[in-house]
Amino acid sequence: MNLRGTPPSSTRILDANAWRPGQDAESELIARRVRVLGPSYRLFYRQPLEIVRGHGTRLWDAEGREYLDVYNNVASVGHTHPHVVEAIARQAAVLTTHTRYLDRGIVAYAERLLALLPDPIDRAVFTCSGSEANDLAVRVARAATGQRGVIVTEEAYHGNTALVTGMSPSLGVGVGPEVVTVPAPDPMAAPHRSFAAGVRAGIERLAAQGLRPAALLLDSILSSDGVHPALDLAEAVAAVRAAGGVVIADEVQPGFGRTGSAMWGFARHDVVPEIVTLGKPMGNGMPIAAVLAQAAVLEPFSAGEPYFNTFGGTQVSIAAADAVLDVLEREGLQAHAAAVGRELRALLDELAVVHRSIADVRGDGLFIGLQLREDDGSPGTALAADVINLLRQRGVLTSVCGAHGDTLKLRPPLPFSRADAARLADELDGVLGDLEA
Amino acid sequence: MNLRGTPPSSTRILDANAWRPGQDAESELIARRVRVLGPSYRLFYRQPLEIVRGHGTRLWDAEGREYLDVYNNVASVGHTHPHVVEAIARQAAVLTTHTRYLDRGIVAYAERLLALLPDPIDRAVFTCSGSEANDLAVRVARAATGQRGVIVTEEAYHGNTALVTGMSPSLGVGVGPEVVTVPAPDPMAAPHRSFAAGVRAGIERLAAQGLRPAALLLDSILSSDGVHPALDLAEAVAAVRAAGGVVIADEVQPGFGRTGSAMWGFARHDVVPEIVTLGKPMGNGMPIAAVLAQAAVLEPFSAGEPYFNTFGGTQVSIAAADAVLDVLEREGLQAHAAAVGRELRALLDELAVVHRSIADVRGDGLFIGLQLREDDGSPGTALAADVINLLRQRGVLTSVCGAHGDTLKLRPPLPFSRADAARLADELDGVLGDLEA
Repeated sequence: MNLRGTPPSSTRILDANAWRPGQDAESELIARRVRVLGPSYRLFYRQPLEIVRGHGTRLWDAEGREYLDVYNNVASVGHTHPHVVEAIARQAAVLTTHTRYLDRGIVAYAERLLALLPDPIDRAVFTCSGSEANDLAVRVARAATGQRGVIVTEEAYHGNTALVTGMSPSLGVGVGPEVVTVPAPDPMAAPHRSFAAGVRAGIERLAAQGLRPAALLLDSILSSDGVHPALDLAEAVAAVRAAGGVVIADEVQPGFGRTGSAMWGFARHDVVPEIVTLGKPMGNGMPIAAVLAQAAVLEPFSAGEPYFNTFGGTQVSIAAADAVLDVLEREGLQAHAAAVGRELRALLDELAVVHRSIADVRGDGLFIGLQLREDDGSPGTALAADVINLLRQRGVLTSVCGAHGDTLKLRPPLPFSRADAARLADELDGVLGDLEA
Repeated sequence: MNLRGTPPSSTRILDANAWRPGQDAESELIARRVRVLGPSYRLFYRQPLEIVRGHGTRLWDAEGREYLDVYNNVASVGHTHPHVVEAIARQAAVLTTHTRYLDRGIVAYAERLLALLPDPIDRAVFTCSGSEANDLAVRVARAATGQRGVIVTEEAYHGNTALVTGMSPSLGVGVGPEVVTVPAPDPMAAPHRSFAAGVRAGIERLAAQGLRPAALLLDSILSSDGVHPALDLAEAVAAVRAAGGVVIADEVQPGFGRTGSAMWGFARHDVVPEIVTLGKPMGNGMPIAAVLAQAAVLEPFSAGEPYFNTFGGTQVSIAAADAVLDVLEREGLQAHAAAVGRELRALLDELAVVHRSIADVRGDGLFIGLQLREDDGSPGTALAADVINLLRQRGVLTSVCGAHGDTLKLRPPLPFSRADAARLADELDGVLGDLEA
């Protein structure tokens, strides 16, 4: 892949919410950090936060100030959940090695995890990150189909390896070879747009390059495209399959019960993908991710080349991931996400009645996009940046997404309570009131 | 990269030591494992081991049998080292999040780590795996040089992403585009071969394709090529630099004091690479890795595209990595590796006098290659496979490497004691005696 020479066209997904050297809020720690970390590192907020402790839906900074976390989906069952912490500590003291020795833990976890997936999906491959999972999944899809093209959405983010960077146009550097983009829904500018029609057009654009699709690689809640729960996905999938391709459901964002209505994002659309990739929330902070598929789908790749991942599915990571499933079940977090998410959306819908800058509220469970607009109806890009920084001043942490960075990404740890939802709505009410005044 | 259609030409690095379905030693656990893990998964040994506990240089199986570990370099400061375990448990209970908040731990660790590197190298980027580190390093080198070619050794292994799989010919599926291979030393067939001459020829082969080298990507102990401590590397590096390329020192194998004579493999050759990648031993089992370079080397890549790694340098991983440096220092493990490695080599040299099947003993510190030959002088491939399986029966765990799989890879956790070395030599003496009888 050659991305050189393509200047960054946007600063969307990674930079919209970033402190940059030269901005205010310099500190001795920031200065030290800039001197030793690579120039790609960014910090959130105009006044960066030094977070020193977390618990449940709360984070604390170095001065002891408490923040409500409405952003972090990695700590999905809550920051430092004692059951997960205990599992990590217990396993770290016993054994951490690789998967070329037999281990009951990884087998039992794979069985438990696969039981949560639709029937055809019967094998797991563990990696360290969602990036590694998607990098592998694309190769599996290409080997399985004998085709090369990959279809992603215009603001997709699927990871940081060379291969999947080229499938992450939200990074602002275009896409790699053999990749085409299709538009996400746009409730403001194109409320009747069909996603499936875009995918069919993408298949035609691939054909014009002499390519057929290996895969539609899709986060079915379209997180970086601005959170779009409604999608004519079944029709899009049918078009991809008719052209000989498969579906890779990137569940790094919607997976593990976050959307409330289903354990997995694809299940919200009654679609059974050939390949599923998992990541961020899987180990509540431990670096574990996975590719799940039918054995027959994995076979052509496995027959063609060896694959081994040293830290993938190491015992400590598996112990954490298993404990995450315990907590999800015991605390009923999927049903909780559905119930609290519904209440939160009702509160936000009420705010939309009184605040003209709220253009749209959408989502499912505890994954909500709140889109903002300027008074002239244009995307509320600057407004959204102000809102997240003012919310941060008020002790509420979130970020933005979408093509214009105009959509608040409300994506808290799943134990988010009704009181947390009310606090978020109150603070947002206050911030929008100040900004609209 | 299109590796499809190229049949596996070897089963070297991943398969030489692998149990395969259909072999004996079936068990209920193996059957369950085969039913849920992807078909790429392999198991070590003709009789796979179920390892349930580790401590120091010892592993224990499900029946309570103890094994001397002469293979695992991930648990570099010893399995379940209490100082590392305690650091993981303590930090997991406090906070695990990402690097877009300020954090004193990652800054202090980066400062401490960079102080162990030669002066020009002044920035760190943390990833989850050596694969991710090498994948990033190659892109950094290409952006910094404006050149595309990559030179690797004929049996190199640099990771499992799409990009670096194409730079890992030991996988047996050839190399990707813009990659050329150069031969490692061959003490048996070509004892006077110059590595630098091979690199110069590689630069010429790139030129014939219209390419100039971005990087020589090199594990300077040449682990998967069979462990070759002696190399005219400075001369090779001069040739790469004269052609406008840089050196990426892949320290996943030799780094963190293993070779005894230096903290880093490149330092054994008085070479200062532009880019250093770290992996396996860095966190003693926690998934942490890094790319280290001068800011000016990282800058062109960082200016061209955003890079963020969610789990890279997460607090628990940093806590483990910092504890690893504590242990390396407090226990003087580099000096220990040098001293015990010297004694072990002396013991193995003694064995070479009495066992005609030992062709060569070479290495540095606690990274030793013991090359075997058949009676007719041909590579001891089948012999090496027998040796590691018989050693396993005697409670000693190791594996093989090299183009012919004829070299025992002796690479224990660093606290390997003089008694451990004597036990290894004794068991090897016994196994070779049985096989030569």
